[in-house]
Amino acid sequence: MPSLTTTQAPKGLEGIVATTSSICYIDGDQGVLAYRGIDIHELADHSNFEETCYLLWYGKLPLPAELKEFRQHLAEERKLDPTILELLRSAPKETQPMDVLRTAVSALSFYDPEDKKNDHDANLHKAFRLTSQIAMIVAAYDRLRKGKSVVEPDLSLSHAANFLLQLNGTRPSETAERALDIALILHADHELNASTFAARVVAATLSDMHSAVTAAIGALKGPLHGGANEAIFHILEDIDKSAADPLNYVKGMLAQKKKIPGFGHRVYHTEDPRATHLRKMSADLGKSSGQTKWYEMSEKIERFVKAEKKLNANVDFYSASTYHILGINVDLFTPVFAVSRISGWAAHVIEQLDDNRLIRPRADYIGPAYPQRYVPMERR
Amino acid sequence: MPSLTTTQAPKGLEGIVATTSSICYIDGDQGVLAYRGIDIHELADHSNFEETCYLLWYGKLPLPAELKEFRQHLAEERKLDPTILELLRSAPKETQPMDVLRTAVSALSFYDPEDKKNDHDANLHKAFRLTSQIAMIVAAYDRLRKGKSVVEPDLSLSHAANFLLQLNGTRPSETAERALDIALILHADHELNASTFAARVVAATLSDMHSAVTAAIGALKGPLHGGANEAIFHILEDIDKSAADPLNYVKGMLAQKKKIPGFGHRVYHTEDPRATHLRKMSADLGKSSGQTKWYEMSEKIERFVKAEKKLNANVDFYSASTYHILGINVDLFTPVFAVSRISGWAAHVIEQLDDNRLIRPRADYIGPAYPQRYVPMERR
Repeated sequence: MPSLTTTQAPKGLEGIVATTSSICYIDGDQGVLAYRGIDIHELADHSNFEETCYLLWYGKLPLPAELKEFRQHLAEERKLDPTILELLRSAPKETQPMDVLRTAVSALSFYDPEDKKNDHDANLHKAFRLTSQIAMIVAAYDRLRKGKSVVEPDLSLSHAANFLLQLNGTRPSETAERALDIALILHADHELNASTFAARVVAATLSDMHSAVTAAIGALKGPLHGGANEAIFHILEDIDKSAADPLNYVKGMLAQKKKIPGFGHRVYHTEDPRATHLRKMSADLGKSSGQTKWYEMSEKIERFVKAEKKLNANVDFYSASTYHILGINVDLFTPVFAVSRISGWAAHVIEQLDDNRLIRPRADYIGPAYPQRYVPMERR
Repeated sequence: MPSLTTTQAPKGLEGIVATTSSICYIDGDQGVLAYRGIDIHELADHSNFEETCYLLWYGKLPLPAELKEFRQHLAEERKLDPTILELLRSAPKETQPMDVLRTAVSALSFYDPEDKKNDHDANLHKAFRLTSQIAMIVAAYDRLRKGKSVVEPDLSLSHAANFLLQLNGTRPSETAERALDIALILHADHELNASTFAARVVAATLSDMHSAVTAAIGALKGPLHGGANEAIFHILEDIDKSAADPLNYVKGMLAQKKKIPGFGHRVYHTEDPRATHLRKMSADLGKSSGQTKWYEMSEKIERFVKAEKKLNANVDFYSASTYHILGINVDLFTPVFAVSRISGWAAHVIEQLDDNRLIRPRADYIGPAYPQRYVPMERR
């Protein structure tokens, strides 16, 4: 045991309050998620991604003129240094998009005009830049690896519409734009999720925004975090291809002691409030696009897992079918999560640095008892 | 407050035991640091960096044949994909070496033959590769930014000697090789320091070794972590250039309420056991190189801060003068820390994944009380 006064925490720091925060309110018993006190349901119904960024970064809803200026500023940051595009081009074609995104975001620091500044204002400027740049990188890499050309941004479009334009090469329908916009709102922040916590741990050494966000992208990549919706779609696809019965397929997984991705959440003991919107979106998009099978499969699986395992669908479960119908490649699901979550990461990094303390816990040593002797080589 | 059962932790998770670990034993009251139970003093006196890596990764000292094979394997990994060298070349000349290192390590994943594997053995292989590659990247970028050519590795040399060869273009003296070797041993691991903790948070989402190490490099960059020895050398240099009295200079800093970098440590309440070796190394290297002034200045400052503020020198304080005499640029001090600490990061990532649980604490919400109303734009 470490010798200074220490307190044993549950594994994975479960239930340990690591910091105060004014950004995200979660009530896991009631199934409440709110940004700056405003319920996620109200934001999903009435707000948009840009306004949500404003809310997360400035702590309040913008006035009309403020939102106009904010949108304009964000749109003006839709530019990438040619060296970044070169980096995307030089990556071997089979490179995982999250590896490319992590690397490109790290490289963005080379060209950031405030790279050596770490104050509140400089970090806000970096938040604007990174939010626009991450969306552009995700879209550009997807096109380049498919042998397509990079699409120029349209500064008159919303963040969601511009992303879909730069990804698909055509202006999205209003339905598709709104669907992605809502998905971006729902994924924008979630308190001390693992990637945000990683970002705060990095920032707390007084390192910089790019280091923190790069770390967050690395954490988001993991299948226990952002990677879950990819795993879900692979299951849906597998069921579809093999024309299997969804329930038999899931029963088979459970018989093999496999976890069904997209269910349960460390924080919620009720339905994940984000799942409510994504379920509806998956159903609506399925209907409007004529691809109802993904929603139908998902819905059957959800009902079964809920009855059998008492587990609720989480944010990832219906985002799989939703993103697929939006024309997003399965290995871009997690990058699209990053396109949204950058807003929360930036808010948390700024909050961490405004009242910082190094995040440095202890470990309980359970290795060979101290002191072990150093045995000289000739006597081993 | 979050609604599920939560426990308030001290700020920065101070004193919170976040995990069990068999790697590093620290007794902060007695000033003990041990890897796998073997005291750091014994390792500094008798071991070498390669053996220390073996100890950290395999949990025991190697037999002669095992060490021989280990050295050979590590040396064989002294290769970099040409695209990585291209990335270093393309970085603007004034780019901070830690930004370049973070980006290049992230990009290494593109070319890692086991990029999609995340099992114990694959991660051990990545540990070998990253240990050799990080040293090469640090050396190569320093030469490229100075308009010099990249030096070919010499597979017959030790890790320390090869690094100095690739950095300076000449084989180091035995004294210089041994000095760096000891510095690498001393910096190899330190339990849940912020960068290692960041690496474990990232790995715990079941993300990969490159994501975890990239995050760790970002954390190490911060002046509250690896960045401290750079700050110390800037002070020594400033005193030297202005021919100031070291004590007056430090008194001036304290009068301005400035913290003196290189003193105090969250974990040690005695002398940092690593400082003992670095102090001696700084003195010895100073004498052998005829540059005694850096040690003399440092020693005066140390005695004063100890008497005045009851603070002990930490690992960073004497590494500043030591690295300077070894011919290492001040902005490479933190990258050289990474050249060593990769050994500990890799050990911790492997340990985390061998018995994983997502690291996801909670925050205490102190923002606008829930529920705030979403006020429609026209009524704001």
